[in-house]
Amino acid sequence: MLPEPIQRSIDLFARLPGIGPKTAGRLVFFLLRTRDSGLSEELGEALAALMEGTDTCPICFNMMSAGEESCSICADPNRDRRVICVVEEPLDVPALERTSGYPGLYHVLGGALSPVEGVTPDDLKIKELVERLKEGEAKEVILATNPSMEGDATAMYLQGQLSGMEIKVTRLARGLPMGGDLEYADQHTLLRALMGRQEME
Amino acid sequence: MLPEPIQRSIDLFARLPGIGPKTAGRLVFFLLRTRDSGLSEELGEALAALMEGTDTCPICFNMMSAGEESCSICADPNRDRRVICVVEEPLDVPALERTSGYPGLYHVLGGALSPVEGVTPDDLKIKELVERLKEGEAKEVILATNPSMEGDATAMYLQGQLSGMEIKVTRLARGLPMGGDLEYADQHTLLRALMGRQEME
Repeated sequence: MLPEPIQRSIDLFARLPGIGPKTAGRLVFFLLRTRDSGLSEELGEALAALMEGTDTCPICFNMMSAGEESCSICADPNRDRRVICVVEEPLDVPALERTSGYPGLYHVLGGALSPVEGVTPDDLKIKELVERLKEGEAKEVILATNPSMEGDATAMYLQGQLSGMEIKVTRLARGLPMGGDLEYADQHTLLRALMGRQEME
Repeated sequence: MLPEPIQRSIDLFARLPGIGPKTAGRLVFFLLRTRDSGLSEELGEALAALMEGTDTCPICFNMMSAGEESCSICADPNRDRRVICVVEEPLDVPALERTSGYPGLYHVLGGALSPVEGVTPDDLKIKELVERLKEGEAKEVILATNPSMEGDATAMYLQGQLSGMEIKVTRLARGLPMGGDLEYADQHTLLRALMGRQEME
């Protein structure tokens, strides 16, 4: 019913997560309505170039610009090489960077263990992490996988893999989120906050 | 902090309506994670070709594939040329087509009158509608602008413009939405439903 180029763009937008056919239609017609802005062409070129322009860092498996030797964090001589923070996804790295409170390096696993989705240790960059720790100068590994069942399982598995090494293994604290309301915290979070309570100094 | 091709795609996605920087980041990293699917390249090409591949129908101002003489609805000999349904946006046409209950033609205004946003009658395809009605064989114009303040103002203005012509001017019915709950209907909708009540046969 719609012209082919429009229907095609809608169908492709709708394959993105969280975007259904209705939202996809609205996005495409927004682009058509504001055609003078050139946004459609710009976005089109950016997406077409996205894959060629990016690569994964061979050290930490974070995203980097294609053609570079390592990502900007691994290449930064000012980062503390004694600490490695292990995260599930590349998007977790900018989240931690925004805290401005982490001076060390990262290691991106590329997911979390999940028997349901068939993700096994071989699918994640775990072997690579162990190699990296054997060769490197890291003294502490911070497990920053998600506070979910899969994230916890992955952290426990990693703890087992790293137990023989002379490396301190820590895990991000769980508890009440800042700005949250105790009344609205779910029972699991509240239990964690109780269990992890700390003496005031 | 992020590689330039990634940041660029995020920034452009975030210019789309309803997509903030966080959602944009999630979309781009979804594309990076599923890079084997080729979705990024496909979507990129589709968006880059979207503007060149589409045009507005010179008769009804609906979207059509570029290079055609008119849109598929205007070109369809089976459509009833005696009725023209006036809508605000191209996206309203597929919404009405999905009802499978409208046999006539369309006229896309390209918006609604809005003093706040500075949209005047000259910004809409109103002159073109009047011309089309003078020349054509239409006997009825259905005003299907949105049930909003701007849509109502546009409908009233159009009614004035068409009052001198031998054409029946109708407006889409307002009332309770199907599947809705009277208790949750807002007062304006309920008032409309009361005012427009119809005798049961």
